[in-house]
Amino acid sequence: MVIKIKCLPAKTKINYKKYTLKTNKQIILKNRPVGLPGKDTWELIENNIPEPQEGEILIQCEYISLDPAMRGWLNDAKSYIAPVQIDDVMRAGGVGKVIVSKHSYFKVGDHVYGQTGVQQYALTDGKGYHKVDPNLAPLATYTSSLGMPGMTAYFGILEVGKLKEGDAVLVSGAAGAVGSVVGQIAKIKNCKVIGIAGGEDKCKYLTNELGFDSAIDYKNDDIKAKLKEFFPKGIDVYFDNVGGEILDLALGRLALHARIVICGAISQYNNTEAVVGPSNYLSLLVNRASMTGMVVFDYAKDYSKASMQMGQWMLEGKLKSKEDIYEGIENFYETFLRLFSGEKLGKLVLKVSED
Amino acid sequence: MVIKIKCLPAKTKINYKKYTLKTNKQIILKNRPVGLPGKDTWELIENNIPEPQEGEILIQCEYISLDPAMRGWLNDAKSYIAPVQIDDVMRAGGVGKVIVSKHSYFKVGDHVYGQTGVQQYALTDGKGYHKVDPNLAPLATYTSSLGMPGMTAYFGILEVGKLKEGDAVLVSGAAGAVGSVVGQIAKIKNCKVIGIAGGEDKCKYLTNELGFDSAIDYKNDDIKAKLKEFFPKGIDVYFDNVGGEILDLALGRLALHARIVICGAISQYNNTEAVVGPSNYLSLLVNRASMTGMVVFDYAKDYSKASMQMGQWMLEGKLKSKEDIYEGIENFYETFLRLFSGEKLGKLVLKVSED
Repeated sequence: MVIKIKCLPAKTKINYKKYTLKTNKQIILKNRPVGLPGKDTWELIENNIPEPQEGEILIQCEYISLDPAMRGWLNDAKSYIAPVQIDDVMRAGGVGKVIVSKHSYFKVGDHVYGQTGVQQYALTDGKGYHKVDPNLAPLATYTSSLGMPGMTAYFGILEVGKLKEGDAVLVSGAAGAVGSVVGQIAKIKNCKVIGIAGGEDKCKYLTNELGFDSAIDYKNDDIKAKLKEFFPKGIDVYFDNVGGEILDLALGRLALHARIVICGAISQYNNTEAVVGPSNYLSLLVNRASMTGMVVFDYAKDYSKASMQMGQWMLEGKLKSKEDIYEGIENFYETFLRLFSGEKLGKLVLKVSED
Repeated sequence: MVIKIKCLPAKTKINYKKYTLKTNKQIILKNRPVGLPGKDTWELIENNIPEPQEGEILIQCEYISLDPAMRGWLNDAKSYIAPVQIDDVMRAGGVGKVIVSKHSYFKVGDHVYGQTGVQQYALTDGKGYHKVDPNLAPLATYTSSLGMPGMTAYFGILEVGKLKEGDAVLVSGAAGAVGSVVGQIAKIKNCKVIGIAGGEDKCKYLTNELGFDSAIDYKNDDIKAKLKEFFPKGIDVYFDNVGGEILDLALGRLALHARIVICGAISQYNNTEAVVGPSNYLSLLVNRASMTGMVVFDYAKDYSKASMQMGQWMLEGKLKSKEDIYEGIENFYETFLRLFSGEKLGKLVLKVSED
């Protein structure tokens, strides 16, 4: 239970004993992994709960978002965002509640989403944070369909993929946080949608629960044959979350003027050797097609518009959001690996609050 | 010398003895090559000069356009155009003169460009042919800057590459028919232009004659180091004619929102193994960049507008066209290989008329 602190005068010295927890458990980066992260990649430490200064807020973190992109942040390489530094708290999005505020906009009791990091309490000046409404959707949904994965799906398929009514759409990582939303948006837009996922259960989830037209089980199906069967006239939009062989097979089945959205390449993130490039890339030339990379942060100014639309679709029952929630910050390491083993269904979330 | 046949009544039986040549020498495809075409790929045959029927014209071919794309047409594979069939005349663009016409639009004496094939006389109903004016530019230029390579450069860099004033532009195959025009157009549009070509002579040609800002000699320079030097803020547009390692290095040096135009991949056309995919393709994601394939035929409706603009630039001395012309249809095989050995400067052309 969170102790109510609404009555705490803004400048009063905080008495941490009033809080649920006495310390702030944090996951910090200790070693840069080669390949799949190992047990020595991170360390769980306990720190004092920090005290907000003027203009700052203290957030009690509830749910931490676990995303494939986090693997990239561990590499000491130039990318769209700086790598996490050794001994720093592991970067992650999270939702929580403001429990102390010395900030003019964020008030105690507000629920917020932002880059909390993997920890139980986050101190921030509020930059990059926004308020979320737990009455409109469960809090964890703000790390999922109403959060970055949902925004990625929305702008990726509509803006980058330039989705048109009637398009034949292929989505990989289709049972994941981004892919499942991509496919549902494409169905809302009256497209034919085929998803690729691993295993029978996930494939059934796509067709039975999310309304995909068909699914391809990459662990058991002949992907090339299935693509030929499902896309007799070729793929108009391929939303790629995985890279590797599946990207190559999709390139081999493009329709004229096809658009490939490069959102991720989970098959390559833990490579210890060089990334495998798509050898069928000249299909772009033959089919006058494009392959475009995206990073969701570029669309920040339109998040609220997109969130309203997504929320509306959820209310209308057209868009389902599924979160796969695990508990306990001490289980971060094992839970994170589920992103790569595929042992999850929907958006992977870690509950770090203790109540 | 072409015998004047203007006075020949339209329906008179043609007396072929009046023509310059008695037969029509043709290059026909005999065997599909694996790797670089060999001597047994084509055969030179002599055929009768065909006689136009109602609605047809007979063209005496003057210059045949030799282009890297022709290598692709030899493969029995689905592409943007059907492969050349065994025993068919080798497909090629060409310019020549109408010497017999039973056509309402094309008149005897007209100079025309079209898919003549590699032969001395071409019979056609005129479909896909257009008139060219030898008084405005030398005839061979219509296979070059005022022909398909010029159109490819024009639409490739302006439409597909979305060139903006001030862009930092990289062009590979820069001393070739397409690349040299791409670079010059980018200079006209006030961009910084770096060309990649093979050997000191070609590099000097780019900077001294065509006005490129700098050139990289891929045979002798450290390409990666040069890209870093010339593009401190990254590449905005990369126009790719070559594929392979150079494409990968360019991907590694992209600016945010960069555009890669995939026009060709000459390094890969004679591969006997699988095409090498660009392993740096995830740079598209990091830089929110795009890689788009193009085929010039898609812009056919705007050719005349583009030709007028290109002709204007040539008259103003802003755009130079260079043709490297070899003689004799019997030298087709050896001349064609110059496309891949790089032993040419500018647009490769074969003169097949005998005068």
